[in-house]
Amino acid sequence: MNIPRSSFPRIVIVGGGFAGIALTKKLRNKNVQVVLLDKHNYHNFQPLMYQVATGGLEPDSIAYPIRKVVQEYNDFYFRLAEVKEIDTDNNKIIADIGELKYDYLILATGSKTNFFGNKEMERNCMAMKTIPQSLNIRSLILENFEQALLTNDIEERHSLMNFVLVGGGPTGVELAGALAEMKKAILPKDYPDLDVRKMEINLIQSSDRILNTMSENASEKAEEFLIKLGVSVWKNVRVTGYDSKTVTTNSDLSFDSATVIWTAGVQGALVGGLDADSLVARAERIKVNQYNQVEGYTNIFAIGDIAVMALEDYPLGHPMMAQPAMQQGNHLAENLVKLICKKEMQAFKYKDKGSMATIGRNKAVVDLPNYKFSGVFAWFVWMFVHLFSLIGFKNKAVVFLNWVYNYIRFDREARLIIRPYKKKHITSFTSDEI
Amino acid sequence: MNIPRSSFPRIVIVGGGFAGIALTKKLRNKNVQVVLLDKHNYHNFQPLMYQVATGGLEPDSIAYPIRKVVQEYNDFYFRLAEVKEIDTDNNKIIADIGELKYDYLILATGSKTNFFGNKEMERNCMAMKTIPQSLNIRSLILENFEQALLTNDIEERHSLMNFVLVGGGPTGVELAGALAEMKKAILPKDYPDLDVRKMEINLIQSSDRILNTMSENASEKAEEFLIKLGVSVWKNVRVTGYDSKTVTTNSDLSFDSATVIWTAGVQGALVGGLDADSLVARAERIKVNQYNQVEGYTNIFAIGDIAVMALEDYPLGHPMMAQPAMQQGNHLAENLVKLICKKEMQAFKYKDKGSMATIGRNKAVVDLPNYKFSGVFAWFVWMFVHLFSLIGFKNKAVVFLNWVYNYIRFDREARLIIRPYKKKHITSFTSDEI
Repeated sequence: MNIPRSSFPRIVIVGGGFAGIALTKKLRNKNVQVVLLDKHNYHNFQPLMYQVATGGLEPDSIAYPIRKVVQEYNDFYFRLAEVKEIDTDNNKIIADIGELKYDYLILATGSKTNFFGNKEMERNCMAMKTIPQSLNIRSLILENFEQALLTNDIEERHSLMNFVLVGGGPTGVELAGALAEMKKAILPKDYPDLDVRKMEINLIQSSDRILNTMSENASEKAEEFLIKLGVSVWKNVRVTGYDSKTVTTNSDLSFDSATVIWTAGVQGALVGGLDADSLVARAERIKVNQYNQVEGYTNIFAIGDIAVMALEDYPLGHPMMAQPAMQQGNHLAENLVKLICKKEMQAFKYKDKGSMATIGRNKAVVDLPNYKFSGVFAWFVWMFVHLFSLIGFKNKAVVFLNWVYNYIRFDREARLIIRPYKKKHITSFTSDEI
Repeated sequence: MNIPRSSFPRIVIVGGGFAGIALTKKLRNKNVQVVLLDKHNYHNFQPLMYQVATGGLEPDSIAYPIRKVVQEYNDFYFRLAEVKEIDTDNNKIIADIGELKYDYLILATGSKTNFFGNKEMERNCMAMKTIPQSLNIRSLILENFEQALLTNDIEERHSLMNFVLVGGGPTGVELAGALAEMKKAILPKDYPDLDVRKMEINLIQSSDRILNTMSENASEKAEEFLIKLGVSVWKNVRVTGYDSKTVTTNSDLSFDSATVIWTAGVQGALVGGLDADSLVARAERIKVNQYNQVEGYTNIFAIGDIAVMALEDYPLGHPMMAQPAMQQGNHLAENLVKLICKKEMQAFKYKDKGSMATIGRNKAVVDLPNYKFSGVFAWFVWMFVHLFSLIGFKNKAVVFLNWVYNYIRFDREARLIIRPYKKKHITSFTSDEI
């Protein structure tokens, strides 16, 4: 991998998400050599991805070049690489671009969509964990409406205008709200020769409330907001299959839909090579102790979504969100420095700063540790927090500008089919035609 | 195509570029039915595409949804469609989404890259006529540098860092300048472990001066600016081949390069079905009279790049640029209304407002009809004109913000490999991995 050894110990970080970037920043010029590997050359801000999928933001405004984060760091190397395997016996990782020895290895590979083994669903549903996936959803939504104009078959048209969102977590709720706002403010103007009132948005949740990691108050409010926006919320319904035409469920309910977006599950994006005892069965995640040290290893750590630190407060690990990931990244930087200096490491303690979700214009729910609220003020808090969490002045400014514009004009201008999404999984493009 | 007949005559416009959009806007609510067809759902601002290719602007900021342009137009229909053939006997067009009868047909299909029959070049060179193509170039440039870090083979590294631009027109010159600025201000910071000074930018022009549609003064100044920025300008050299490794020319010169961008020729993006006598041989363009009426037809018109109106001042037709396209679109709208009212049409007269090109920071050349200048002021004029030519407030604001940011920070932040460009023409993606 062409990385020269320096006199400092080498820390290899796999993954430039919230956890990996937090760790990287804190390790700046700390008498260690840091090698950061990611399969993308940018960090992406997942919480705003649903706005890319629904044309509210341009993809570039929520992506930030990793090389720009680490400009002018000493003894630092970034490599665009996908890690395939860890060889723990020889302290090295095996990636698509070659092998690399590590002194300390930090796994911050995050999570990916989990279809729980249902191959049919995996083939036919859209996922939304990466920017290209969000752009595929954006293309498909718009293509559906173009297609709906062309057909005289009422059932086909209905299916093209029927959106099914599986999973009532923050992503599903936020997507549902954004689609509802498109239906209200944009699509009737864009498609005057189509009866957009016929568009349906169905949000399906397997448990008895949406946003079930938040307070009951938040769940109720969010549902109220969604219903007001015209979203059909189905609770206690589990989706069992989707053959690219019909969504079947564990009840009598079924939905004919051309667009099913799956946000109902995540699993760790695991790299092979760790001992089976270090893993959490089925979830593809890694057991770590309170120092984020992987069980059974002394020089391998895991942080963020991939790590399960089962403590009393969080027997199943911390929530798979940005906050714990960043806190673990920050904390681990200090512990690594301590470890290298042969000092004692400090146990990680998660500080829950609360959680929030936005449903639409002036509509959000916020749970702070001691205070829960919703509505306009919650919406401003949501925007403020997200805006200031973005990396980089320019991204903040462009997102702010878009939001102000969209708010004043009731608009979402990025409704562009830049790379058509070829349904039925013909996603091959020729270089000129796209 | 599901478009109901109204009591007004139907005008079908093929193509939503500068010409088609200008015509569309002028035909708003003019007692005609207008059907606009385009294979993209957005209008794109070609003059700034080179900034997308070099990471200076996000693609969404130079694209504008066509449906937004025509919101609230009466008796207006847009369809996302690729027109395959014209059936002039039956006054209908045949598209991928079905057939459509027209009373008047306007061809505004623009131009596409012309490799003059050299299939090898077509296979191996990058073109830059569409936004996805610009994004492919952006990805490839960045991938090359990531790749250059990995190799120990000096020749391979040189080839990865050697950029060959074929064609010294505005696109080639602007791209060369932008690459030179990346080399100077950004790449050394992004790739500290690479000797970026070794990067080469070669601009190859077959005639004896670059920008040969502009004044000699502009050509000289532009060349001076490019050389100052470290670009190698080769004049009187014609590229004869590129086998994906080596660019050969009609002289002893050859270049080992992994990235060859071809901007050396355009041809009309012709739709089949017109009589051969109506066409300009080899250039795939359409002969029109001074009313933009296609030779041999009374109800078919052509405007913009595709049309050749051979007049005394312009024996080969007007320059293939935005200005003549927009002027023809505007003018034809008036003539169509006249024609329908059985009034006499007016001959088109091109008003040359001048031309300009930017080479880099504070460096541009401007030819006005009576005044030619270059340097800082020309650069501000260039920016001003381009900013105000963009459609839409939000795009203007985002581009402005980017330019101010890039100027102050010597930066181009959109250096993101969002969809990797698979070289060797393996441009197939699977839906999840990209």
